[in-house]
Amino acid sequence: MSKAGDDEGVPDGWSQPSQLLEGKAAGGKQSKLSTASFLPSWTKVSCPCCASDRVEPLVLVKLGVKVVPETKRWLIKLIGTPKKDGGADLMAHPGEDATGDIIVVSAPRCTLQRAVEELGLCKMYCNGDMEAFSYSDRDNFKNSDNMEGFLTLAERQYIVKYELDGLRAQKDLRVPGLPENFTLKKRDIIWQKLGSVGVIVDTLPLHNPNKLKDLSKAWYFGNQLVQPLDEINEYFGSPVAFYFSFLDFYTWSLLPPAMMGLFIAYSSGDDQKEIPEAGSQVGEIQEDSGFVISGHMILAVFSMLWSTVVMEMWKRRSASLSYRWGTLNLAERFAEPRPGYRGELGTNPVTGRVEPLFPEWQRGLRMALVSVPVVGLFLGLVVLGMMCFYWGEARVQKLHTDWDSLLTQTLLYAPSVLHIVYTNMLATVYNTAVQSLTEYENHREESAHQNHLTAKVLVFTFFNYFAVLFHIAFFKRDVPLLRKRLASLLIVSQLVNQTTEIVIPYLVDRYVSSPNRNEKEDGSEEDKFRNQGMMPPFPGLFAEYIELLVQFGYLSLFSCVFPLTAVLLLLNNLTEIRSDAYKICKLFRKPFSPPVGDMGVWQIAFEVLSFVSVVSNCWLLVLSPRLQEKCRRGEMSSTDLLLGAVIVEHLLILVKVIIAALIPDEPNWIRKKKEQWEYKSMQALRQ
Amino acid sequence: MSKAGDDEGVPDGWSQPSQLLEGKAAGGKQSKLSTASFLPSWTKVSCPCCASDRVEPLVLVKLGVKVVPETKRWLIKLIGTPKKDGGADLMAHPGEDATGDIIVVSAPRCTLQRAVEELGLCKMYCNGDMEAFSYSDRDNFKNSDNMEGFLTLAERQYIVKYELDGLRAQKDLRVPGLPENFTLKKRDIIWQKLGSVGVIVDTLPLHNPNKLKDLSKAWYFGNQLVQPLDEINEYFGSPVAFYFSFLDFYTWSLLPPAMMGLFIAYSSGDDQKEIPEAGSQVGEIQEDSGFVISGHMILAVFSMLWSTVVMEMWKRRSASLSYRWGTLNLAERFAEPRPGYRGELGTNPVTGRVEPLFPEWQRGLRMALVSVPVVGLFLGLVVLGMMCFYWGEARVQKLHTDWDSLLTQTLLYAPSVLHIVYTNMLATVYNTAVQSLTEYENHREESAHQNHLTAKVLVFTFFNYFAVLFHIAFFKRDVPLLRKRLASLLIVSQLVNQTTEIVIPYLVDRYVSSPNRNEKEDGSEEDKFRNQGMMPPFPGLFAEYIELLVQFGYLSLFSCVFPLTAVLLLLNNLTEIRSDAYKICKLFRKPFSPPVGDMGVWQIAFEVLSFVSVVSNCWLLVLSPRLQEKCRRGEMSSTDLLLGAVIVEHLLILVKVIIAALIPDEPNWIRKKKEQWEYKSMQALRQ
Repeated sequence: MSKAGDDEGVPDGWSQPSQLLEGKAAGGKQSKLSTASFLPSWTKVSCPCCASDRVEPLVLVKLGVKVVPETKRWLIKLIGTPKKDGGADLMAHPGEDATGDIIVVSAPRCTLQRAVEELGLCKMYCNGDMEAFSYSDRDNFKNSDNMEGFLTLAERQYIVKYELDGLRAQKDLRVPGLPENFTLKKRDIIWQKLGSVGVIVDTLPLHNPNKLKDLSKAWYFGNQLVQPLDEINEYFGSPVAFYFSFLDFYTWSLLPPAMMGLFIAYSSGDDQKEIPEAGSQVGEIQEDSGFVISGHMILAVFSMLWSTVVMEMWKRRSASLSYRWGTLNLAERFAEPRPGYRGELGTNPVTGRVEPLFPEWQRGLRMALVSVPVVGLFLGLVVLGMMCFYWGEARVQKLHTDWDSLLTQTLLYAPSVLHIVYTNMLATVYNTAVQSLTEYENHREESAHQNHLTAKVLVFTFFNYFAVLFHIAFFKRDVPLLRKRLASLLIVSQLVNQTTEIVIPYLVDRYVSSPNRNEKEDGSEEDKFRNQGMMPPFPGLFAEYIELLVQFGYLSLFSCVFPLTAVLLLLNNLTEIRSDAYKICKLFRKPFSPPVGDMGVWQIAFEVLSFVSVVSNCWLLVLSPRLQEKCRRGEMSSTDLLLGAVIVEHLLILVKVIIAALIPDEPNWIRKKKEQWEYKSMQALRQ
Repeated sequence: MSKAGDDEGVPDGWSQPSQLLEGKAAGGKQSKLSTASFLPSWTKVSCPCCASDRVEPLVLVKLGVKVVPETKRWLIKLIGTPKKDGGADLMAHPGEDATGDIIVVSAPRCTLQRAVEELGLCKMYCNGDMEAFSYSDRDNFKNSDNMEGFLTLAERQYIVKYELDGLRAQKDLRVPGLPENFTLKKRDIIWQKLGSVGVIVDTLPLHNPNKLKDLSKAWYFGNQLVQPLDEINEYFGSPVAFYFSFLDFYTWSLLPPAMMGLFIAYSSGDDQKEIPEAGSQVGEIQEDSGFVISGHMILAVFSMLWSTVVMEMWKRRSASLSYRWGTLNLAERFAEPRPGYRGELGTNPVTGRVEPLFPEWQRGLRMALVSVPVVGLFLGLVVLGMMCFYWGEARVQKLHTDWDSLLTQTLLYAPSVLHIVYTNMLATVYNTAVQSLTEYENHREESAHQNHLTAKVLVFTFFNYFAVLFHIAFFKRDVPLLRKRLASLLIVSQLVNQTTEIVIPYLVDRYVSSPNRNEKEDGSEEDKFRNQGMMPPFPGLFAEYIELLVQFGYLSLFSCVFPLTAVLLLLNNLTEIRSDAYKICKLFRKPFSPPVGDMGVWQIAFEVLSFVSVVSNCWLLVLSPRLQEKCRRGEMSSTDLLLGAVIVEHLLILVKVIIAALIPDEPNWIRKKKEQWEYKSMQALRQ
């Protein structure tokens, strides 16, 4: 492994300490060398118990090119200063060249442990249970003296960022080396302010090439059926781990609908397809079966129940993962507010800490009076765009049949092109708008901010994707068109996905990243770090989640008109897992990952979709060719048909609600565990 | 007041201590007398700090007539024995005659305080906030040395019952004076076992006549618009107080629909009523208005939204009451299981206490495989009965028209009579069945047991009440009949209620209770206590709640066909408050009231009803005379009408869900308070 590490250009000197701690048989020569050459430059730790001769580089801070050494020294000092004196209590390293534009940051043990307590992370207690970490009881937690075993890499890096972001000026002060007119005011957020004037260009977590190599081997090389979820959590943090866990869970749960779909497509696919085209000829076949129940209907009911059960089971799985990763009861509410939070300075009534306060009702007002109308407006614009598109298409179609020239022929494409341009522009404007809207809503917690932002983008994107399908299903009431559209969407989107997610990444890696890599191999550690900063930043999981949500939407909302949906999705997802894993490991910077306990707003989005699916499926049942045929031949009044569908819908919603209520959201053992925590804290409070 | 007390036969001697503590100017003469004559007989308190010369009689234990003095002495000793020796740590008094068939029980301070901690009640801390009571921190709670001010009367009495019920044999033992073959086995519940062999006939809390008199004055004498909720909670405990709070809240919230109903009945009542009978004549009037929107529809939509808002606001009110009464975070889960709980003896994984354990999944299985089918069977029998009734009625009607004799005339009544007999028998059998079913489900907590029992009875009763109305609305689709039926139900049920709840109680009190009362006046304290045992036991709040639920059902489900519903209900409830108060104060024994934090299952029942109301109202909209008329004249296809109603229904459900999500279930200050508790216990746990 050590050899492989060399080949890949591992910054051995920096990563060695962690290898030693993990007891791996790494090359001894390099470890000595690195310890000797780097340690003198790390800032001293303020707390004597944390002094250690092995320091792991965690985070890279990139400074602006114009930053003078004076400012850099001041920054390094600030990072190393104890908290009570307004510093971050971390360790900084100026890089090989003390005047260079990077600072490498690490964290001593006590700072990490205190932050773990503040974040409310759970860690393994000496009796093997997960317990909320307590700094004063730290000796009873497993591995509490070995930070590499105690915390995941993602947690350590996030804590460094958390501490840096939390740096506030204790009094008005000038930063050495910066112009006179730039002063930090009391309680200013130093990191944000320095970022705004270009002193700090970037803060990014560093890859650990050895670990990354092990992870990729276990993850996407070969034909593994199981993803190394714990290792993903260790390396990339819980948000990424939750995404891949869900992707995994969801992919496997596609098996039943895929088999069902295959069976139905095989057994009844033929007559179903022919009915709309040639109703009367196949009348006899229908009479034979004697029922009005078709595969169509069975699949509709099945997919409704399936989606409920899957989401309920996922909640349970999510709770166990969250327990395993120690994020089951995060204390974000009781920690410092996020850096962007504004408000009048006051005493937090709960924690007694002095911090900005912002009344809840005012946030509610802003959401109700500003955010909701603006989002509504944009959704209205989407609908307007769609209407213009249909109107325009009809007009040019007519024009073409009337005039039939080359000009009109090219004009035929105009509505589509205009619509695509319009939609893309709208999306760009919208994304900028919701950023400011969410900032304006002024959420106290980072997770709340993220969830509200995601929810806004989500609604718009989803609407964009499904408006056309809903239009076909509910207004045009044209099942064959819906089927055609769905099939082409599924196949086209898969081809596009595979291309963008596998082929392009591969090409990029081969022809863009590889030259970088060669350059790295004989460069210094510092260059290697600097090169990581050259990679594009990780774009976040939004695009990945929305892809799953849209898939889930196709499947649960419309799959009854195209039974093979689940099969196609299953095939797609098996490659999706690998391409996503490859992307995050190789093509982007490592992202910072705050610890999270679940999928956040995505959980809700999937559940809402699963509810809407009942309505949609029941409506598609009404449109089902067999029943429409019956109506046309007068065997059944359309009022009765509609009434029947409404009754079935209400029953199914009832069944759905009952299923959701009957399957507990947490496994029994987690409920027990939570009760134990509650009981213990009740007892502790009484003493 | 002291004089009034004498007139009413107050047992001054026993109640005096509490008066002294409350600092009331009561007759000094009697207080001395009682203290002198009674104190020698109370058992000694084991804890020296609780010794007091004033003991308040709280609970009366009635023994079987055959119980020998030996057994009584043993029981008194058991009640007074400290807990660690297997006793109840209470105080017992043998009554005036040491061999008589009563024992009066009271509780020393430490026992009460420890129980308050175990139950998880909140009490006022020295800083004015409510905090979970902690025995070790007791000196910092207000009034903690004065039990009459610290705990409510209802709480003190409940704690005595809680301790008596919790008595368990520490080893196999024989009870002196009972036959040889009766032995208590280890861990047997003594009170239950002695009850089953007739040693203990009854355990009842004692009235405090002075307080009762004050309470009734503030409550139902005169024209108060506000009920003395805190005093009700003090005297009767939180379940009763929650019922009256809800009754009060609900009655006031009837004002908007009542005004709306009056307005609509006045402005559009006439043409509405005539349309079904004489459609074509009023056609022009409709054309005049130009809209298809009638008062009918406005009322339907209004009552749906109204019911949502009312229930959401009630949740907030309920949370504040619960905070005020210290029942916001009860710790029933962590206390001893209820006496009837069976299971294999083991260690509770949460509390570490040795107690019977019963796996959750087994309870779930019993509920799914036994309870649900049995309840379903009974509901089926109700429907069957209704069908038989309709069938029978049609048959005798035909018979009567065919034959027309005196015999057939009397036969006309047969189906109704048979149906009533059948329904009543079914209800009796059902009530017995669900008792055993719920016992079989083996719930650990008393509240869970009660809620499951109530839910079962509730479903059946509700079904019984509404089956006919639903049948008329959904199958016969006959709005005029529904209107007639609803009006008669409302008026008849109110007349019946007023009779049973005011006239009969008054008569009973005048001619049955008054003789008792005269007898009391010159009897001893003991006789007065004994007389309380002669009153009928309090039948519980089920009948009261179901009455409200049925009212709420009439209003939210069907009121749009009879706009005056809310007005009639408002009038009814204003008297209902008084009659209910009179009943509970005068006509029954005082009930034991476990502290509760909300209305329990009733909350859910009201909310479910409020959801069903959307479906029901939308359906009634479809049946609305104006729209049906349009259909009949071909201005609108019935499919379109139905489709419109379905869309409106879905939109309204969406609005309802959004309203429910937007109105927080707890006021902001309670949320803050809870967060404070959570933060404090988190901090405590860390130390």
